[in-house]
Amino acid sequence: MIEIPAQTGVAFTLRPGQRLRVRDPEGLQVSDLFCFNRTDPGEWLSSGRSVDYADTLLLTTGHALYSNRSRVMLRIVEDEVGRHDFLMTPCSLAMFRLVAGNEEWHPSCHENLAKSLAPFGISPDQISTTFNIFMNVVFEPSGRLHIEPPLSRVGQSILFQAEMELLVGLTACSHEETNAGRCKPITYELLDP
Amino acid sequence: MIEIPAQTGVAFTLRPGQRLRVRDPEGLQVSDLFCFNRTDPGEWLSSGRSVDYADTLLLTTGHALYSNRSRVMLRIVEDEVGRHDFLMTPCSLAMFRLVAGNEEWHPSCHENLAKSLAPFGISPDQISTTFNIFMNVVFEPSGRLHIEPPLSRVGQSILFQAEMELLVGLTACSHEETNAGRCKPITYELLDP
Repeated sequence: MIEIPAQTGVAFTLRPGQRLRVRDPEGLQVSDLFCFNRTDPGEWLSSGRSVDYADTLLLTTGHALYSNRSRVMLRIVEDEVGRHDFLMTPCSLAMFRLVAGNEEWHPSCHENLAKSLAPFGISPDQISTTFNIFMNVVFEPSGRLHIEPPLSRVGQSILFQAEMELLVGLTACSHEETNAGRCKPITYELLDP
Repeated sequence: MIEIPAQTGVAFTLRPGQRLRVRDPEGLQVSDLFCFNRTDPGEWLSSGRSVDYADTLLLTTGHALYSNRSRVMLRIVEDEVGRHDFLMTPCSLAMFRLVAGNEEWHPSCHENLAKSLAPFGISPDQISTTFNIFMNVVFEPSGRLHIEPPLSRVGQSILFQAEMELLVGLTACSHEETNAGRCKPITYELLDP
């Protein structure tokens, strides 16, 4: 198990068949995931295709995360929590300014993903809507969105299987409000087939 | 008023302050919109930022469509229909294959956007989740998604104002099911400030 310290991010590669377990060691903590085809970063994670093909906004065990070329990038193999968000972009300096009115620098998932993915030749512009593991975004029938505390409890995890060569960015989310008031670490593990 | 014939698309530029009216001349017809910063196509329409900053899945009069750099691209100035989708990618050959099991070629918004935007140097990979004007995607509390007939009636329209130099792709949607069984034209008009 590798720890992602609070309010930071990492990037790593996955081979087809390899599995990725993302665990919430303390509970109530979100982890944003974005990924690219490792051999061609013009292929990237598409929330719009994934929710269309799954016919649901709430992806869980058995669902696939599709690329913008309609190919499966990751499959959700196990899910102990069952509530994740695929609507919102990662928290960012711009979000803290626009939504929270915060003009100061603040750690953010977008910056942490951008920093972690930069050595692989990815630019900040290429990071689209993330799969926000354990994030609990409630949508009302009116369309209104609320961020509620994650449903993840101590030690719960989600397990993905890679279906192509992937470059993955993963964070321990930096937004206090999203994480029940306190930003905590995330751990992850790569499992060979 | 310029007509977009059924199951086709167009691309055009907008200057800041210019307005775009998109009209449903026969009723019950969807039009997919995607846009780029005309001077730098690394900046593009972001559904994830737009719904986050609006705090709703259902954008209407007064809401802004944001870029991946968190800048306003378009504002919705008038909206006679009030129901549009910002969850799904445009219909595509892959969608017809994966969702409808259709192995034959079929016109699609993704192909029509790609063809229309190609002369401006845009590749198909760069077309992310579109703002699907008049598309009526119902989301249940369970997260389940259904496509219902559009709420647009004969001659109803939506009016956008450009807030930056834009390259816009716009279609008359090609998916029979999305358009109450029959694909029809869309019309649009560019209005100078």
